Amino acid sequence: MQAAVLYSAKDLRVEQRQEPSAGAKQVKVKVEWAGICGSDLHAYLHGLALEAHPLGGQQPPFALGHEFSGTIVEVGDGVTKYAAGDRVAIEPLLYCGDCYACSRGDYNQCMKVGFVGLHRDGGFAEYVVVDEYMLHRLPDEVSFEEGALIEPAAVSFYAVRESKLKAGDSVAIFGAGPIGLLTLLAAKAAGAMKLIVVDLSDERLQKAKELGATAVINGNEENIAGKIIALSNGGVNVAYECAGAQATMTNAVASLRQGGQVMTLAVFMKPVSIDMGQIMFKAADVTATLAYRHVFPEVIGMVAAGRLDVKSVITKKIGLNQIVEEGFEQLIQDVKQAKILVRPSQD
Amino acid sequence: MQAAVLYSAKDLRVEQRQEPSAGAKQVKVKVEWAGICGSDLHAYLHGLALEAHPLGGQQPPFALGHEFSGTIVEVGDGVTKYAAGDRVAIEPLLYCGDCYACSRGDYNQCMKVGFVGLHRDGGFAEYVVVDEYMLHRLPDEVSFEEGALIEPAAVSFYAVRESKLKAGDSVAIFGAGPIGLLTLLAAKAAGAMKLIVVDLSDERLQKAKELGATAVINGNEENIAGKIIALSNGGVNVAYECAGAQATMTNAVASLRQGGQVMTLAVFMKPVSIDMGQIMFKAADVTATLAYRHVFPEVIGMVAAGRLDVKSVITKKIGLNQIVEEGFEQLIQDVKQAKILVRPSQD
Repeated sequence: MQAAVLYSAKDLRVEQRQEPSAGAKQVKVKVEWAGICGSDLHAYLHGLALEAHPLGGQQPPFALGHEFSGTIVEVGDGVTKYAAGDRVAIEPLLYCGDCYACSRGDYNQCMKVGFVGLHRDGGFAEYVVVDEYMLHRLPDEVSFEEGALIEPAAVSFYAVRESKLKAGDSVAIFGAGPIGLLTLLAAKAAGAMKLIVVDLSDERLQKAKELGATAVINGNEENIAGKIIALSNGGVNVAYECAGAQATMTNAVASLRQGGQVMTLAVFMKPVSIDMGQIMFKAADVTATLAYRHVFPEVIGMVAAGRLDVKSVITKKIGLNQIVEEGFEQLIQDVKQAKILVRPSQD
Repeated sequence: MQAAVLYSAKDLRVEQRQEPSAGAKQVKVKVEWAGICGSDLHAYLHGLALEAHPLGGQQPPFALGHEFSGTIVEVGDGVTKYAAGDRVAIEPLLYCGDCYACSRGDYNQCMKVGFVGLHRDGGFAEYVVVDEYMLHRLPDEVSFEEGALIEPAAVSFYAVRESKLKAGDSVAIFGAGPIGLLTLLAAKAAGAMKLIVVDLSDERLQKAKELGATAVINGNEENIAGKIIALSNGGVNVAYECAGAQATMTNAVASLRQGGQVMTLAVFMKPVSIDMGQIMFKAADVTATLAYRHVFPEVIGMVAAGRLDVKSVITKKIGLNQIVEEGFEQLIQDVKQAKILVRPSQD
């Protein structure tokens, strides 16, 4: 079968690999659609660790891809709830099940947390083997394309659920990439009224408007926080940090009203400077979520019911052979691109 | 009467002032004891704003002092709940009563928040006039010395109540000055089991041990966070930042367990650098409280019941004439000093 395997930074090879088979409590999935994520891009630009992950059970290099949907083609011993032919989305988390966080059900905060597609072979391949516990059934109303978007949508949906947002609130979203756009959809679905999106690209802001932003601000404008405070009648209840830069964090803190919150979804590559005087004066807080837990069924249900239009963030669909030039390189060069979906299957 | 009036940085004068009289809904209080606070020290070192505060109704310079107890000697028109002779502690907040925060009862987050003793004449004076709404009656079990400690104890008690602390939890307290020590007492009273205190001074740490710290760490030691994680079996639930420095914030974040919180009581004079990667991996949060609201009765009750031994932080008692050399200068030079109380009255 064909798979896109990351050997080192910028060395992503579409190559022939042996088809995997399902072990006990595993299933073999024919991948239907797989999305390219910001963390895939990060791995592509910087490479991945060369050691095996403690829960991955596999030596690198790995096929990337952790946002995918598929059809089960084979079930291993002990699989009880799924059968060949089932349409599924995959929740790709690896966790120990045993640590402080896992024993409380907080598996996304496992001390050893890992991902299918980053720490063992993922969905940029015609077939992938995943554990039964990772599976979520897709109802007929949810297409395979939408199924590939459940994972990133879950990131945003979970962050919104964990945030202080209440229906009727005002929010600001910093960054209008795929996670920013999905956070916009999730915050709207959760009842946010004012939805202010900030990004450096007018093209991305246009997309945000199409998806329901009530106001957009280009990040190059002056006095962004002042504009947000004016638009939200005194500051937003929650600022979602989906950009991961010093300027956006500074503006996020400055945009809050009393009692507000910065909820961080972006990965910050270095420490960020925060004005604790503002945090104190506003009794605000700065927090973050990593991935998601226990929300895939809710996200699938919201998509099925038409309450989360996740397909609206898709900007391009390509085949596996195009993944480097038309996928990763395109995302680096073309700021218009939001979510690019890859179809590994050749049928 | 005598009062200690701050004219500018390092220019605190004990001088003769006219005795004030109570206006409508005000009372005149004979100050029994008044504590010197870190914010008084900050005002002493850096001076205060020269403009009148919008809610202060008075031009600077002001008599300092916002932590005080006293006896009512005169009541103004419309005062209904208090009479001459009543023993009181003063909650010295000025607020508008009308803004977003005030209209929700969150008066400590008023956009115009101010303090008696920083924004109008305070308690380093034989007499002071305060508004009836600021008064809290002291029961016989609470001494005037303890009465002067209700205000700083309320800062710590409120921060502990607003924090994620649950009974049985582990906490770290960074900084063993008066607020750190009162936070130690408040966290213990709220059921914290492991109470780890970090400070640069062994003398302060000795005091922390006397007050109930289960472990102390000198801030000059190596690997402070590692030691806290070992002592707390995986990290603390809440780290109270009562020091306000980069090193302590960094250690506070690093000392948290999954789901933990940094609750900041210290005033940071400049932005602080925070590793959002750790915040994300731990799903932790960083927050802060300013002053207190709606907790003076509870603090007075806890002191009366012997559940908060606030008098244990008193290290020295002086007269008003000694306030500069034996008070402010002593606090700057002698790290052993925690709370110094001043008695303005000459009887």
